[in-house]
Amino acid sequence: MQWEQVFASRASRMKASEIRELLKLLDQPDIISFAGGIPDPDLFPKEDFAQAFADLFDGPQAQAALQYSVSEGYLPLRNWIAGRMADLGIVCTADNILITSGSQQALDYLGKLFLSPGDTALVGWPTYMGALGAFNAYEPCYDRLEPNSNRSAADYDAAAKANGGQVKFAYASVDFANPTGVTLDQRAREGMIALADELDIAIIEDAAYQGLRYDGTPVDPILALEIAQKGDIEQCRTIYCGSFSKTLAPGLRIGWAVAAKPVIQRLVLIKQAADLHTSSLNQIALHRVASKGFDEPVAKLRETYSGRRDHMLAAMEREMPEGVTWTRPEGGMFVWVTLPTEIDGAALLAQALKSEKVAFVPGRAFFADGSNGNTIRLSFSCARPAQIDDGIARIGRAIRAALA
Amino acid sequence: MQWEQVFASRASRMKASEIRELLKLLDQPDIISFAGGIPDPDLFPKEDFAQAFADLFDGPQAQAALQYSVSEGYLPLRNWIAGRMADLGIVCTADNILITSGSQQALDYLGKLFLSPGDTALVGWPTYMGALGAFNAYEPCYDRLEPNSNRSAADYDAAAKANGGQVKFAYASVDFANPTGVTLDQRAREGMIALADELDIAIIEDAAYQGLRYDGTPVDPILALEIAQKGDIEQCRTIYCGSFSKTLAPGLRIGWAVAAKPVIQRLVLIKQAADLHTSSLNQIALHRVASKGFDEPVAKLRETYSGRRDHMLAAMEREMPEGVTWTRPEGGMFVWVTLPTEIDGAALLAQALKSEKVAFVPGRAFFADGSNGNTIRLSFSCARPAQIDDGIARIGRAIRAALA
Repeated sequence: MQWEQVFASRASRMKASEIRELLKLLDQPDIISFAGGIPDPDLFPKEDFAQAFADLFDGPQAQAALQYSVSEGYLPLRNWIAGRMADLGIVCTADNILITSGSQQALDYLGKLFLSPGDTALVGWPTYMGALGAFNAYEPCYDRLEPNSNRSAADYDAAAKANGGQVKFAYASVDFANPTGVTLDQRAREGMIALADELDIAIIEDAAYQGLRYDGTPVDPILALEIAQKGDIEQCRTIYCGSFSKTLAPGLRIGWAVAAKPVIQRLVLIKQAADLHTSSLNQIALHRVASKGFDEPVAKLRETYSGRRDHMLAAMEREMPEGVTWTRPEGGMFVWVTLPTEIDGAALLAQALKSEKVAFVPGRAFFADGSNGNTIRLSFSCARPAQIDDGIARIGRAIRAALA
Repeated sequence: MQWEQVFASRASRMKASEIRELLKLLDQPDIISFAGGIPDPDLFPKEDFAQAFADLFDGPQAQAALQYSVSEGYLPLRNWIAGRMADLGIVCTADNILITSGSQQALDYLGKLFLSPGDTALVGWPTYMGALGAFNAYEPCYDRLEPNSNRSAADYDAAAKANGGQVKFAYASVDFANPTGVTLDQRAREGMIALADELDIAIIEDAAYQGLRYDGTPVDPILALEIAQKGDIEQCRTIYCGSFSKTLAPGLRIGWAVAAKPVIQRLVLIKQAADLHTSSLNQIALHRVASKGFDEPVAKLRETYSGRRDHMLAAMEREMPEGVTWTRPEGGMFVWVTLPTEIDGAALLAQALKSEKVAFVPGRAFFADGSNGNTIRLSFSCARPAQIDDGIARIGRAIRAALA
């Protein structure tokens, strides 16, 4: 059978994620990897989850946990999230919240809700490659999101029309972004709201790393700034996407979206048609863990990860040759490295894997136009100090060899 | 904000599922409901799941269960499924299997893989409304799947072209179908293969109820028949969708798709971009439960459900007025009722809820063209004998009142 002849046109845009393909190759114990942006499994609150599942099966919730449930998500969990959102200045109720199977699913559903083929999504340059992957299924064009730049709303609008669609939303990973580690400051966030107001489009605020700030001053979420401007969430165009994957554990696949009710109601319909609901069992167990004590395991994460970040930045200072620059993130998992323009990150990886047994993610896939190949992403979340010292030295050697 | 102006064109086809909206209203204890097609929670192997989660958290798998994992799904679970598939005549390896978050998600991903706007999906008349909901997001047209009818492949092809696309697949719920309870016989299955061969399209075989046969002779899956014809799965156009929701428990959201590798590889890319992977934890736990003993809990289900089916069919014989006809399913959860043409199922439900406190699902939503309003679906899976006697008598009275 000639499958290509019956695939939808969108299938031509489906590509394997470099990161996830890489992850499969990194089982060899002698490779030092800064590639995967995953949490350190040693820090999962394993005992809390064990207890939550044991209690759940021992009590009256066992049947409900194994049964079908509503597409919106488990109400006590949505209420708990609403409380946390209020702490961030996002005043909302459970009706403003949809539970998703990881925040990745929220990105897929938002692409589905907003994008017809040829529509334009405004994204960072670079941006989270998983967002590009999710949106690609809906065949959009991309334009570069630059709040407070000299590009006017009319410029964005004209570019989108020239591509046969309209601008539908601006997407940004806001805190210690994947891949750059950079945080959007308040002025940039307010610039995004102003631009979106002018264009009359949605804002997708990806806050997956929000809980992982190690130092510096917290910046209010875009949705909180917009609520402060406009009075309440029902007047707002920002859709906030959160995740438990970086704070408690990713294996349960639980994230959430917060927005005005008309958006949430549509997302509920999308979820109903796409997978009915997120695991009842996991939602109930995660609610038990989170409501018993969320801040303590997250504080432990912050302490450990911030030490690793410091260690990596110190090693970079020692080991990177001249002409290499990198970011100093206030949180999250990533340092973003810009190499001399003559070095391609993917070629460097191929060489470094072979000669130095060290891994990272080439930066090109984070750019919607595949530009800026002279970049790489390093993750410090799972690396021990000795590995960091050794691994960064190896990368320094690989870069020097490439320059030679 | 005028959200409608930024929604994708597909948003106009998103409607709330009548079944799931109904489920929310049925908490009142005095209503007898045959509406929800859900398993009886009293029959979940609760102790087995409790033990599986306890063992898992107590052993070396705890960290992997809480961590990110590959999009394909947990390899031991895929191997276990491959073994069960072989028992059904579907010889395949783990590389032919994708784990999905319920078989509903497989339907969504298959719509995404095959359907561009205006393409045609061939479906039963009626068919599973959740399949229509999943496919609708990709803006297809529907045509009526009638294997072995006098409609030729050229007729289907011409109709699809007139609608601006091409026929992409034929979808069928094959065993004790939702909503009709009817099983496709071998001749119909072979007719589907012949038609799909002529049209050079895919077949989506929805086998969600496959394990729930109570009597009659098992019919080989379409994919097994096609493998027998063509030699091996890589030559086949059928994509088999299975589910643990009706046999073990739906709350974990675990299903699977089986197909030739080029299809599975695309579906893996779709899953990677859409939700990364199905819950690692749930896949590991479910594998432990299934491999420890799958047949015993399913045998218990069959015994209980078949008794309820018999009880419902006996009550129908007693209580239904003349002019009402219904199916006699060999398995599954549903009896499909055709009312005299002057009675609309939705109007009957509104009346019956009020005057008789009894619920069921009106049949119109199962037809892609919203025709055949004089039908209703009854589920016997959760009803006790006394409720069945009482509830079917109530429906009989409601129908008589509507005819009066």
